Amino acid sequence: MQKRIVIIGGGFAGINLALELGKNKYYQVTLVDKNNYNFFPPLIYQVATAYLEPSSISYPIRKLFRSKDNLHFRLGELLKVVPEAKQIVLNNGTVDYDMLVFATGAETNYFGMENVRKHAIPMKTLSDAIQMRNRILTHFEEATITQDKDEARKMLTIVIAGGGPTGVEISGMFAEMRYRIMRKDYPELKNTGANIYLVDGGAALLKPMSVKSQKHTLEELTELGVKVILNSHVSDYVNDEVIFSDGTKIQTKNLIWAAGVSAMQFEGIPITSYGRGKRLMVNPYHQIEGLTDIYAIGDTCIQSGDDAYPEGHPQVAQVAIQQGKNLAANFKRLAENKELHAFTYSDRGSMAIIGRNQAVVDLPKPKIHLKGFIAWCAWLFIHLLSLISYRNRINTFYHWTVAYFSRDQSLRMIIRPVNLPSVDAEPLEESNLSPQNLNKL
Amino acid sequence: MQKRIVIIGGGFAGINLALELGKNKYYQVTLVDKNNYNFFPPLIYQVATAYLEPSSISYPIRKLFRSKDNLHFRLGELLKVVPEAKQIVLNNGTVDYDMLVFATGAETNYFGMENVRKHAIPMKTLSDAIQMRNRILTHFEEATITQDKDEARKMLTIVIAGGGPTGVEISGMFAEMRYRIMRKDYPELKNTGANIYLVDGGAALLKPMSVKSQKHTLEELTELGVKVILNSHVSDYVNDEVIFSDGTKIQTKNLIWAAGVSAMQFEGIPITSYGRGKRLMVNPYHQIEGLTDIYAIGDTCIQSGDDAYPEGHPQVAQVAIQQGKNLAANFKRLAENKELHAFTYSDRGSMAIIGRNQAVVDLPKPKIHLKGFIAWCAWLFIHLLSLISYRNRINTFYHWTVAYFSRDQSLRMIIRPVNLPSVDAEPLEESNLSPQNLNKL
Repeated sequence: MQKRIVIIGGGFAGINLALELGKNKYYQVTLVDKNNYNFFPPLIYQVATAYLEPSSISYPIRKLFRSKDNLHFRLGELLKVVPEAKQIVLNNGTVDYDMLVFATGAETNYFGMENVRKHAIPMKTLSDAIQMRNRILTHFEEATITQDKDEARKMLTIVIAGGGPTGVEISGMFAEMRYRIMRKDYPELKNTGANIYLVDGGAALLKPMSVKSQKHTLEELTELGVKVILNSHVSDYVNDEVIFSDGTKIQTKNLIWAAGVSAMQFEGIPITSYGRGKRLMVNPYHQIEGLTDIYAIGDTCIQSGDDAYPEGHPQVAQVAIQQGKNLAANFKRLAENKELHAFTYSDRGSMAIIGRNQAVVDLPKPKIHLKGFIAWCAWLFIHLLSLISYRNRINTFYHWTVAYFSRDQSLRMIIRPVNLPSVDAEPLEESNLSPQNLNKL
Repeated sequence: MQKRIVIIGGGFAGINLALELGKNKYYQVTLVDKNNYNFFPPLIYQVATAYLEPSSISYPIRKLFRSKDNLHFRLGELLKVVPEAKQIVLNNGTVDYDMLVFATGAETNYFGMENVRKHAIPMKTLSDAIQMRNRILTHFEEATITQDKDEARKMLTIVIAGGGPTGVEISGMFAEMRYRIMRKDYPELKNTGANIYLVDGGAALLKPMSVKSQKHTLEELTELGVKVILNSHVSDYVNDEVIFSDGTKIQTKNLIWAAGVSAMQFEGIPITSYGRGKRLMVNPYHQIEGLTDIYAIGDTCIQSGDDAYPEGHPQVAQVAIQQGKNLAANFKRLAENKELHAFTYSDRGSMAIIGRNQAVVDLPKPKIHLKGFIAWCAWLFIHLLSLISYRNRINTFYHWTVAYFSRDQSLRMIIRPVNLPSVDAEPLEESNLSPQNLNKL
C-alpha cells in the first residue's frame, strides 16, 4: 500500500517536488492549490504592464500531471492542519496524509498598514497583475476625462514601493510605456507633470546584488526618467497621498506595493514552529522540528544547517526549486531505506531587467558582473528557458519579439472582472473574490 | 469649424463608421464605449471554451485610432440623451454633439425570466466568455471533489439554450472537449453520465440557414454526442433545474444562454422611436424619424425601405459593417453637398462551425452549400481575415494551429476576478462590476 504525500501549494517548490515524485511510483501524491494553475512570478510584472498574456506565464496543473498516474490535483484552500489525525481541512473538504509538505510560499506584507493594504496594488499573484493592468489603464482613461489638472496628475503618477527586482522592473517598464505609448495613444495627456517614483527604505536598489549592479541600475532608471527615492519608508496612504516616515508626501492614485513578503501561519501548527517572517523552521531535511511527517520547502520555510546561510536562505525561485528536488530525492531515499541528504543551496546568481536592452546580472562563481545589452540577452534567455512548458516559451518569445520591434505593449484591454462561483460553500460570497483572499495559499 | 459626430458603441457598426470617417477630415469624431477595446463576437465562444485568449480577438480602440487625428475615444457608459441640448450624459460626464449615432448593439434577452438572468451564463460579451470559462472549469473541479454522484452530474451537465451559430458552436466545442481533454485531465470523472444538451424553441437549428445545412448540423452534433432538443422552450431555472414549457426538467449547474438578444432603450429617446425588439426605427439613411441629427446603425436599429428585407435586416455582423460604411459615406456626401445613398444590404452568406473539420456554409449568389472539411476551411479563413488587426490574426492562427495538432485546449486557467475601480464616481461600487452591467452598451 503506497503512502500518500500531500503537498500544499503549486509554486516553484511544490510543483518541482511533485514532478520529481512523478518519476518514481513510490508514493501517491496529491497537490493542493487554491488556483488550478501554476504560474511564473518573475514575469507577472510583464502581465501587469500589458506585455504578456496571463496564459503565457501560467499553466494548468492537471495538464502538468497528465500521464503521471500517481500525481493528483485538488483545488482548495487550506484552513487548518490536524496533525494528530494526519488530516488537513480545506475550504471544501478534508484530505488525509501520510506525509504533509508546506510549499505555501509567501504573501504580500503590508507591515500592518491597513490603508496601504486596502488601497495599494500588490504584485504577488497573477490576479494582482491583472488588477494592476486594469486599474492603471482605467486611471489613464479617467485622466483624459477630468478637467482638474491636479486630479489628472494623481491618476498618472505612479509610486512603486520596494527597490527589489520587481520594483526596478515595473518602474523601468512604465518609464518606457510613458515614452513609447502614452504620447501616441493619449494625445490629450501632454505635460501633465506626472512622475514615476521608485521608493526603497534601504540605501541602494537591488540590495542582494553587487554594488556595480546597484549603481548601474540607479543610473539607468534615472536616465529613463524614473525618480528614485532611497532611505525612505512609506508610513501611510490616505486620500490618494503616500506619506513617508520623514513627513514628505506624494499625491497618487497608483501605489504599487512590492516592498516585502511574509509567510503565512496555519491553524494546527504550534506557534513555536514559526521563525523570522513567520517562516516555518525546518532542519536540513526540511522536517518541521517537533512535528511528525510534516515538511516545509520554499519561501515559507527557513532552514537551519546550511553554513553559508546562517540567517536562512533568500526567498527566491532557485532556492524553492532546489529544495523541492532535494526533498523529492529524500522521499525516494526514504522509500529505499537509504540515508537522507541534507540540503545546501547552490547560488546560480541573480539578475534584474531595467528596460529595453538594459539589465544587470551577477554570477557567483566565477564572480562575473554583466550589464547592458549582453545582460539583457542573458535575462531574456534564462527567463524563457525557465518557463514551464513549450507553449509558454513560444507564446512569450512571440510576444516579446512583437513588442520589441513594434516598441509597443499591445495588450491594453481593460477586461472587467465578473463574479463567478468560487470552489467553496458560498459560491458568490464577496470575500472569496477579494484580492486579499486571492493572495492566500 | 468642423462638426462633431459622436458615436456610441465600438462594435462592428461603430468602429467601421469611425474608421471610414478617419479617412477624410470633414468631421471631429468621438467614439464612446464602456470598454476601451473592440472585440470580435463571432469568436467569443472560443474564449469561453479556452481555445483563444481574450487578447486574440480584442484590440484597444485608442490603438485603432492612432495617427487619425480627427478620431477620439471616450470611455464611458451612456445614461441619457438630451436632444434639445444636443448633448449626451455619461456615467462620468457629458459630451456635446452635432450628429449623434447609436451603434449600441444588443444585449442578452432573458425574456423576463429573472431566475435565468440571475443564474444562467450569457454569451454576448468578452466578460461573459471569461466568466463562462472560469465557471465551467470550476464546476469540473468541484465535481472531482464531491462524493455525491448526482451533484457531480449536475456540475458536468451542460445545457445550451439557443440553436443559432453560437449555440451550435459551443455545444460542438464542449462535446470535443469532453472526449479529448476530460478523460486525460480528469480521470476521476469517468462515466458520470453527464450530457451536453442543445435546446431550441424552433423546429430546426441554424434557422436562417438552408435545410441542407440544418440537417447536416443536426447529424454531426448528434454524432458528437450532443443531445439536441427542438421545439422546446425554457420556462424557468430553479435549484439547478432547467424547466421546460412542457414540464420536463434537466438538472444542471451550467445553463448557457444564447437564446436571444434585445436592443437597449435610452432616456431621452421617445418611446415611439422604438420598434420590434426595442430596435430604433430608422429610414434608409439611418436617421431616426422625428429626431434631428440622431442616427442608428447595426443591431440596435431596424431600417425601413430595403425591399428585400421588409421585416428589417438580420442582426448580424455583415449588416452592421455595411451600415457603418454607408453612413460614413453619407456623412461625407453631406459635407460635399452631394445626394445621400439609401442603404441596401448585400448578403454575403452565412456559416457555422460544428467541430473539428466540420462546418456548414451557405452562399447566396450563386446559391452554393458547402459542408465538412471544405466548409470548415472556409469558416477558418473568413474568420481569420475578419479579425481587426494583424496581431489578432497571427495570435488566433497560432492558437488554432497548436490546438488543432495537439487536439487540446491549453488555456484552462481559472484566473479569478479581482475588484478594480470602474470609470465612474464610486470606483468600487459592486453594481459596476456585475455581469448585467457589463452587457450594457
